[in-house]
Amino acid sequence: MFSSRLARLNRGVATPTGRIAQLIWRSLSRSLTLSSQRRVPDLSSFVTRTNTCGELRSSHLGQEVTVCGWIQYRRQNIFLVLRDFQGLVQVVIPQDELAASVKKILCDAPVESVVRVSGTVISRPPGQENPKMPTGEIEIKVKTAELLNSCKKLPFEIKDFVKKTEALRLQYRYLDLRSSQMQHNLRLRSQMVMRMREFLCHRHGFVDVETPTLFKRTPGGAKEFVIPSREPGKFYSLPQSPQQFKQLLMVGGLDRYFQVARCYRDEGSRPDRQPEFTQVDIEMSFVDQTGIQSLVEGLLQYAWPKDKGPLGVPFPSVTFAEALASYGTDKPDTRFGMEIVDVSDVFRNTEVRFLQDALSKPQGAVKAIRVPEGAKYLKRKDIESIRKFAADHCDQEVLPVALKASQDWNTPVAKLVMEEQGRGLARHLEAQEEDVVLLTAGEHRRACSLLGKLRLECADLLEARGVALRDPNLFSFLWVVDFPLFLPKEEHPGELESAHHPFTAPHPSDIHLLHTEPEKVRSQHYDLVLNGHEIGGGSIRIHDAQLQRYILETLLKEDVTLLSHLLQALDSGAPPHGGIALGLDRLMCIVTGAPSIRDVIAFPKSFRGHDLMGNAPDVLPPEDLKPYHIQVSWPTDSEAEKNSLTHPHRPES
Amino acid sequence: MFSSRLARLNRGVATPTGRIAQLIWRSLSRSLTLSSQRRVPDLSSFVTRTNTCGELRSSHLGQEVTVCGWIQYRRQNIFLVLRDFQGLVQVVIPQDELAASVKKILCDAPVESVVRVSGTVISRPPGQENPKMPTGEIEIKVKTAELLNSCKKLPFEIKDFVKKTEALRLQYRYLDLRSSQMQHNLRLRSQMVMRMREFLCHRHGFVDVETPTLFKRTPGGAKEFVIPSREPGKFYSLPQSPQQFKQLLMVGGLDRYFQVARCYRDEGSRPDRQPEFTQVDIEMSFVDQTGIQSLVEGLLQYAWPKDKGPLGVPFPSVTFAEALASYGTDKPDTRFGMEIVDVSDVFRNTEVRFLQDALSKPQGAVKAIRVPEGAKYLKRKDIESIRKFAADHCDQEVLPVALKASQDWNTPVAKLVMEEQGRGLARHLEAQEEDVVLLTAGEHRRACSLLGKLRLECADLLEARGVALRDPNLFSFLWVVDFPLFLPKEEHPGELESAHHPFTAPHPSDIHLLHTEPEKVRSQHYDLVLNGHEIGGGSIRIHDAQLQRYILETLLKEDVTLLSHLLQALDSGAPPHGGIALGLDRLMCIVTGAPSIRDVIAFPKSFRGHDLMGNAPDVLPPEDLKPYHIQVSWPTDSEAEKNSLTHPHRPES
Repeated sequence: MFSSRLARLNRGVATPTGRIAQLIWRSLSRSLTLSSQRRVPDLSSFVTRTNTCGELRSSHLGQEVTVCGWIQYRRQNIFLVLRDFQGLVQVVIPQDELAASVKKILCDAPVESVVRVSGTVISRPPGQENPKMPTGEIEIKVKTAELLNSCKKLPFEIKDFVKKTEALRLQYRYLDLRSSQMQHNLRLRSQMVMRMREFLCHRHGFVDVETPTLFKRTPGGAKEFVIPSREPGKFYSLPQSPQQFKQLLMVGGLDRYFQVARCYRDEGSRPDRQPEFTQVDIEMSFVDQTGIQSLVEGLLQYAWPKDKGPLGVPFPSVTFAEALASYGTDKPDTRFGMEIVDVSDVFRNTEVRFLQDALSKPQGAVKAIRVPEGAKYLKRKDIESIRKFAADHCDQEVLPVALKASQDWNTPVAKLVMEEQGRGLARHLEAQEEDVVLLTAGEHRRACSLLGKLRLECADLLEARGVALRDPNLFSFLWVVDFPLFLPKEEHPGELESAHHPFTAPHPSDIHLLHTEPEKVRSQHYDLVLNGHEIGGGSIRIHDAQLQRYILETLLKEDVTLLSHLLQALDSGAPPHGGIALGLDRLMCIVTGAPSIRDVIAFPKSFRGHDLMGNAPDVLPPEDLKPYHIQVSWPTDSEAEKNSLTHPHRPES
Repeated sequence: MFSSRLARLNRGVATPTGRIAQLIWRSLSRSLTLSSQRRVPDLSSFVTRTNTCGELRSSHLGQEVTVCGWIQYRRQNIFLVLRDFQGLVQVVIPQDELAASVKKILCDAPVESVVRVSGTVISRPPGQENPKMPTGEIEIKVKTAELLNSCKKLPFEIKDFVKKTEALRLQYRYLDLRSSQMQHNLRLRSQMVMRMREFLCHRHGFVDVETPTLFKRTPGGAKEFVIPSREPGKFYSLPQSPQQFKQLLMVGGLDRYFQVARCYRDEGSRPDRQPEFTQVDIEMSFVDQTGIQSLVEGLLQYAWPKDKGPLGVPFPSVTFAEALASYGTDKPDTRFGMEIVDVSDVFRNTEVRFLQDALSKPQGAVKAIRVPEGAKYLKRKDIESIRKFAADHCDQEVLPVALKASQDWNTPVAKLVMEEQGRGLARHLEAQEEDVVLLTAGEHRRACSLLGKLRLECADLLEARGVALRDPNLFSFLWVVDFPLFLPKEEHPGELESAHHPFTAPHPSDIHLLHTEPEKVRSQHYDLVLNGHEIGGGSIRIHDAQLQRYILETLLKEDVTLLSHLLQALDSGAPPHGGIALGLDRLMCIVTGAPSIRDVIAFPKSFRGHDLMGNAPDVLPPEDLKPYHIQVSWPTDSEAEKNSLTHPHRPES
């Protein structure tokens, strides 16, 4: 009878943590093994345990072991499941009189208390193995136990199936970190960064150089945090990247630099951005664009987790102009089709007014995307929401056209288009009867941009209807190249600003345009895009002081005194150089499939820039400000009100 | 005739950079090879060269090579010496008519211009090899050449023998980095850190976790830079270390954490300190003091540069009390003797007043150090400077006594001591006739502290006289343990403050004293000392919330609301844990034998916290402060004057 009770209990063991957690724990132990191909790390060196909970297997049978862990769960004072970073193990609580004190310790300790137990690794009774648990063939028969720390209070249970708001997770981050998902994400991050370091240092002789974060403001560098110094009126700034320093390192002959660099950007409240973030920052001398691209491809290939499959290189490449024309964005998600097609020729003689108008203007065009089987999946309300999205977000008109004549939501205009241009449209778009076409018209860039957004909207809608469009296991890398060097300033379109930063070298084929039509000059900037997210960007830099000065002073009207050291450096034997910075947080977010970059950062800030655990930023006693010669200018009531309107105090997360 | 001219020129090639530079370049190429035992890194991958200048050897003879480098030096338009990060190589400028354009490029380019040359590696003519130059057996016969960038201005020559002030070096750091010494230091730093990472990640399963630098102020955390946020009156602080985060990671079950962490400390102007600095930060769960010590010994042994000889482990260990008694400091330089000896017993019946007085007081003692052969090396003016040092720095009296009766500078008191206690003193100190004894008396701690300082002063004096006392090739590691947990506050000696930080666990043997005599409690803190410098410190932490609260609230009278998150965390199943932080800048400074930590940092601040290259900190336009709701409180004239007295505007460096 006792053994059947045991069996029942055993079956139950896997349930509380749930299947997903089991899978994550399993992949965790797999990736831990992968991390050091040469030698398995000793995870119990220097400490008072012989083994981790999660590593015990049948191969340990008969061994006397000591493990430390958290009480995940206890069943009827007979079993205890202990957890550590590597997984779960079942512990059998002794029931005999002589071990009463051990039993008392293990039965009295609240869940999540920390204990150390010693005992023998034994087989589970036949039929009671748990194949879902990596340690499911064994259990520990306890001899001694010690309560290392009792858990007094828990705002939520440490079980993956327990849903928590993100605000609660951030407030109690030290508890949230115990989840299998956070353990997995942080460990994988550490391993991938280590692999990158190996590739850069060992394979290619890069030098890891730390650059300052207390520096001076960059020209045009809004969004830089300021730090008052002890000298009245003088401030350091926290740079957004080590850009100047890495270029100066090249001038200094360092040849190959990299740094896993902390960067800072004060953007106020923005979802899925962090005021401090991490870049894998790289710079090389005597390199061209192809060189940097090959380096990055090799780097990612080398660091890529084995269980995500091999990465094919070289990555495909499109120009900025092509990306805009086909995807309406400079960061296309190339996991699926639905590219934008120019159908202007089909509509040369259209009677539809808004198409006619568009085509009569310079740069005017009619553009379309084809939503495959849209007639089957998109409902009338979806079509309405697409129209509304276009109007709200882009202030533009979109015309959804179902190729199926019987489609009830086709508007009279859509019906007219189908009658007059239906065949041409179907031919141009290779459309089938069940497809839906979204048409828009207007200036090339605006029309493409709208359809680029609608392409993603439609992908969301189709996926919500169960169509598998974007494979979550697919990693579609893409280079985007040949960006414009300058853009018209948003607020003063007559003036130019750098499309990226003012140190970007112009495209060699366009140098001659710099003095005549600078707005037409392409740059040697390149972006690396993964699944529709920009995960890196870099360029070949200007190494000629005269050219740099011309661009800064004459074209951009910047105050060059802030950059006199850089201009001097370029005049002192600066080698040709270029580099890239990869956004590590975003990359890890995509690799782990996490919903937010906050899930791959140990202690992230909320979207309002708050540390919800420690309550930062916080008020300071006035005496703490005195050494820095600053005082708070409290906003007047009306200012404060205006402020709260622009940054409404939404609840966090 | 031409060949004899060649010979003369060849002989000269090594001279301009000098012998020391040659040695450094040689050790540089050696250590580069050492860095990756598994596989030699490819230093010319992805770029437009086939080889580095410094790597060419006889094994490359006959090869067509392309190298890029800086013109180090040109001799009579026949030879060019090119430099890159790996060393120097000699290039033969073609003299025939057909190659006139190549000759023009190479002869016209100013020194420190950047060129790319292609040609054949050939042997130097017999007798013209330069054994001092790693590439001295070969030269490159140039076919094509390209000027990549012309060097327009140089504030100083890039030659190691050219002496520059440090201010000039810092202002033109990008040029200073071209020196063999800076190249060596930064590359060795990168390599040692990489070795540490390998040891921690691959050998022992540590996880590299990045922790925030924008956080909130720590209780008692003066010296923290503040960063205004966009919320009026709310500030982030830059923490001095990731202390709280690493403890919270342990509570979060991360088990083994490390980070090469940027830390910040605003100490105003202090020589050889930096406002931002780097720690190798480590924390482990379920560990005791011995565990951390073994880990760090293994870590340093693994990362230690091969050419500095193997490190013996375990490192010796002394208690804080022993260190104070024998060396008068908690960071003894154990490369040499001259330990402090308590000679109170010798003087029980002394007639010398100041010794008598001291002995009559509680804790009073007479202490001595023996300066070996001091009579031979110390001149009268040295003895005067020793007295003056004691008076100026410690406000204490020191009595120098020459054992040799004939020593002319012995004072009447010294003579009296020699007559009465000479034999006892000689016996206690094992002193020889040529030795000098420095005597002082007073409270134990003060007397030891004075002699500790004089021990180092005397070492400087003896070394200035040519006595080899501290071997620059010796690395004397030492653990100092059993520190007091609390110290009396300097300004309010009735109150206690943490000797290190409030999270340090008390020594298990002294726990019972916490409620009765807290000032007597020793801690589980440990310092790692190298050649008289503290290069690391750590402790076992408090994991019990109740104990932590008692220490913070009752003993230290701190505001616990600032730490409520930490106290809550300790109550939520915190494992026992401990760790250490190694000061990477100081460690690298000692390993490289550099005169200052600024020589192992790519872009250091001056001792006044200035970036002399970029001119930071700097004034900001008022509109940059507006989003942060702060304004500058300009000091009044009298305040400014007072300020300039406390921080006189000494010229930089």
